Amino acid sequence: MPHMQTAEKWSVFEVTLSDPQVGNPFDVALSAEFRYKNRVVEPEGFYDGDGVYKVRLMPDTLGTWEYTTVSDLDALNGKTGAFTCVEPRPGNHGPVRVRNTYHFAYEDGTRYVPVGTTCYVWNHQGDALEEQTLETLKSAPFNKMRMCVFPKHYAFNQNEPELDAFERLPDGSWDFTRFNPAFFQHLEKRIGDLRDLDIEADLILFHPYDRWGYREMPAEVDDRYLRYLVARLAAYRNVWWSFANEFDLMQAKTELDWDRFFKLVQAHDPYQHLRSIHNCREFYDHNKPWVTHCSIQRHELDQVTIWRDQYRKPVVVDECAYEGNIPYNWGNITAQEMSNRFWEGFVRGGYVGHGETYVHPEDVLWWSKGGSLHGQSPARIAFLRQIIEDGPEEGIKPLDINWNQTQGGKRGEYYLHYFGIRQPAYRDVHLPEDAQFTIEIIDTWGMTITPVEGTFSGKCRVDLPAKPYIALRIKKV
Amino acid sequence: MPHMQTAEKWSVFEVTLSDPQVGNPFDVALSAEFRYKNRVVEPEGFYDGDGVYKVRLMPDTLGTWEYTTVSDLDALNGKTGAFTCVEPRPGNHGPVRVRNTYHFAYEDGTRYVPVGTTCYVWNHQGDALEEQTLETLKSAPFNKMRMCVFPKHYAFNQNEPELDAFERLPDGSWDFTRFNPAFFQHLEKRIGDLRDLDIEADLILFHPYDRWGYREMPAEVDDRYLRYLVARLAAYRNVWWSFANEFDLMQAKTELDWDRFFKLVQAHDPYQHLRSIHNCREFYDHNKPWVTHCSIQRHELDQVTIWRDQYRKPVVVDECAYEGNIPYNWGNITAQEMSNRFWEGFVRGGYVGHGETYVHPEDVLWWSKGGSLHGQSPARIAFLRQIIEDGPEEGIKPLDINWNQTQGGKRGEYYLHYFGIRQPAYRDVHLPEDAQFTIEIIDTWGMTITPVEGTFSGKCRVDLPAKPYIALRIKKV
Repeated sequence: MPHMQTAEKWSVFEVTLSDPQVGNPFDVALSAEFRYKNRVVEPEGFYDGDGVYKVRLMPDTLGTWEYTTVSDLDALNGKTGAFTCVEPRPGNHGPVRVRNTYHFAYEDGTRYVPVGTTCYVWNHQGDALEEQTLETLKSAPFNKMRMCVFPKHYAFNQNEPELDAFERLPDGSWDFTRFNPAFFQHLEKRIGDLRDLDIEADLILFHPYDRWGYREMPAEVDDRYLRYLVARLAAYRNVWWSFANEFDLMQAKTELDWDRFFKLVQAHDPYQHLRSIHNCREFYDHNKPWVTHCSIQRHELDQVTIWRDQYRKPVVVDECAYEGNIPYNWGNITAQEMSNRFWEGFVRGGYVGHGETYVHPEDVLWWSKGGSLHGQSPARIAFLRQIIEDGPEEGIKPLDINWNQTQGGKRGEYYLHYFGIRQPAYRDVHLPEDAQFTIEIIDTWGMTITPVEGTFSGKCRVDLPAKPYIALRIKKV
Repeated sequence: MPHMQTAEKWSVFEVTLSDPQVGNPFDVALSAEFRYKNRVVEPEGFYDGDGVYKVRLMPDTLGTWEYTTVSDLDALNGKTGAFTCVEPRPGNHGPVRVRNTYHFAYEDGTRYVPVGTTCYVWNHQGDALEEQTLETLKSAPFNKMRMCVFPKHYAFNQNEPELDAFERLPDGSWDFTRFNPAFFQHLEKRIGDLRDLDIEADLILFHPYDRWGYREMPAEVDDRYLRYLVARLAAYRNVWWSFANEFDLMQAKTELDWDRFFKLVQAHDPYQHLRSIHNCREFYDHNKPWVTHCSIQRHELDQVTIWRDQYRKPVVVDECAYEGNIPYNWGNITAQEMSNRFWEGFVRGGYVGHGETYVHPEDVLWWSKGGSLHGQSPARIAFLRQIIEDGPEEGIKPLDINWNQTQGGKRGEYYLHYFGIRQPAYRDVHLPEDAQFTIEIIDTWGMTITPVEGTFSGKCRVDLPAKPYIALRIKKV
């Protein structure tokens, strides 16, 4: 008996086939039945150039899997094989799922607190800058990256991408029937790099900032592109499907188009990766059943509690403006204000995303191209992340919020109060009478945690430093 | 011929009558016909205690006025006299009127830029503290004071007032048929003190924070009180009628009550002083014809432009939270944020009011009791006031405001840009092509004005200090 192949749980297992090219290989129908006991998973395959076809699986169960390929091309049809799915390496917790309605966990049950950043097209900047971005991410607090499949045309983004997504016809126009495998291989490489840093790839499938035509492809090309992407990428455990950045600015698309895209990916993705869509002004209806969580652009973090109630899904404010100093008001808030928005959103039981837009002599702004971080908010975000991860396992629930109080936690056990830009000299807190609590004063900007001496119960007055950006952490003894 | 009395234009001219008290002197009908040529002004008189009755006029026309009293009491009826109205002293510009739809001017045409503060019950604190408040106001930047007729019961406000507004019955309850003249004499004295400092008295006629019963008097007492107030105070040129603080928290009153109060005062005030009503949460309908301007409580100063469009009246945000450090979020913003809110509101063509609530060992908080100012925003407010007063005579008009730009001024002549908490390193401004402009960079917090070298036209890029609270002033050469 030959040595059986092994594949780590939640890794990419790949069946590679080849056939000399005849006609358009992108038209070849290919899939594989992967069988584990009585269970069958049948992902679609794809053509990867140079006569090579692939079918990918993300195995999610330990043990022996067998497979048989299915194709309308004889040379690719009926190929069989088997492999053993083995224990994941430390740090591999599987794909992220929604848990407890408003929160997230990896498939192995490990809690996942999304602390995202945005480098829209870091993957289109050439290897030198892309490697620098990865190096920066190693010591940054971020475990999610918003990034686009397609390149970006916008202020500070005038450079040509190294790779095109399609081949071209002799007249220079796109041949939408032929993908450029190198484009997608590079994308996969970068998604894999993020995975190896434990960073989720919140992959933006369409966006409006375009001079190449990707934002206004014919409907059948959109669908073909989505199926090709799913075939290639769904086996990457760290992929999230973000159907658009600022969908409402994409005039060539209607709401029905977006619905169709969601349903198409939902139908083809064997692993049901997270699905969302990001707005500019108006929201897509996040209540639609194929939306797994809200991906929101808004500056008003006090709305997080409203969106939670409105959609009953996790609320991720991926864009609340960026720390920086560019002329646009979406990209010139201070580090203090960025940190403030993170705290406001997290204490209300939501999640907030980072971005950075400092003017740079070569237009290398983190928000789009990656590179290095220059701001002061990432350190505060790391500090907050640690506090949230040390908090209730089931996530933060907003508690008794009113005009005078921003508070979240777990009733009776754990409370975070946040005072934002306010500077109270003291505050009364109302704790349960039947237990004792410790109180700590957190300087969210200074990144200090100072215990208040004693333990507390019932109504108690807490003296505060009378400056902005102060929080309280209150824990049951 | 005896020497004829004189009265300064827009001062209080008083006819004093007396009669030994019979029955309830507050029930005596009294007025006077004041005649200037073919014009007649007929203010109501009032009983001022100790057998003394008065009728007051604010003469508004230079020359000879004659009068005849009218009363159902023979001893007060048919008294005649005359006086000469003479030129006002410097600084006396008459009452404030609405001008140019959204702005204000004194009756003599001098522009009035309201820069208000709030000391709700400074006039109920005893002479020592009241004199200290007046002393503080002498060097403060404020030319309007929000203040209540009645005393206040609230956090930090537990002290008893020195004077009651009514006499008491033997059982200790109010005798609502008999005012306490000393109460109103003291109020007048303080309104006169403000007038002498060129400060408008934005007089709050009702408010909800009460333990004495003033907030829930019978309807006929309310009406009688309002007529008595108008009879006493309308001749003070610096009086504004603010029908309530937080009318929507006064559960004993309905919208019809407020309408009635407005109409009653409108009918009896010979001089048509400014009339407004201040909200807590919901707005009164400022479109009603008897409302002269909007008096608003809101923290969102970016709404000023919306309210202007909605009501087509001056927008005065009398309460946008107070600089201070008390536990309540309406009273613990930083000086920076207070200054920021002033700038945001003024550049949008509105007006903003100040208040201060720093914790004080004897609970003497400026916002309610007056005393001394401790904060850092008044200096910035003075700086802003000077800039606005140096600006277009007809007031600031919001110009081309959008998500990226807060700008007001006079098109083609004068522009103020304000960047708020944003920290742009540069901005493009778009000036008319057919003129030259100077550009100054204003540090609204640092209180510096730095000219940019040269003159400018068309689209130009302005380098900025990349920190918060920066504005631009652009003037046609």
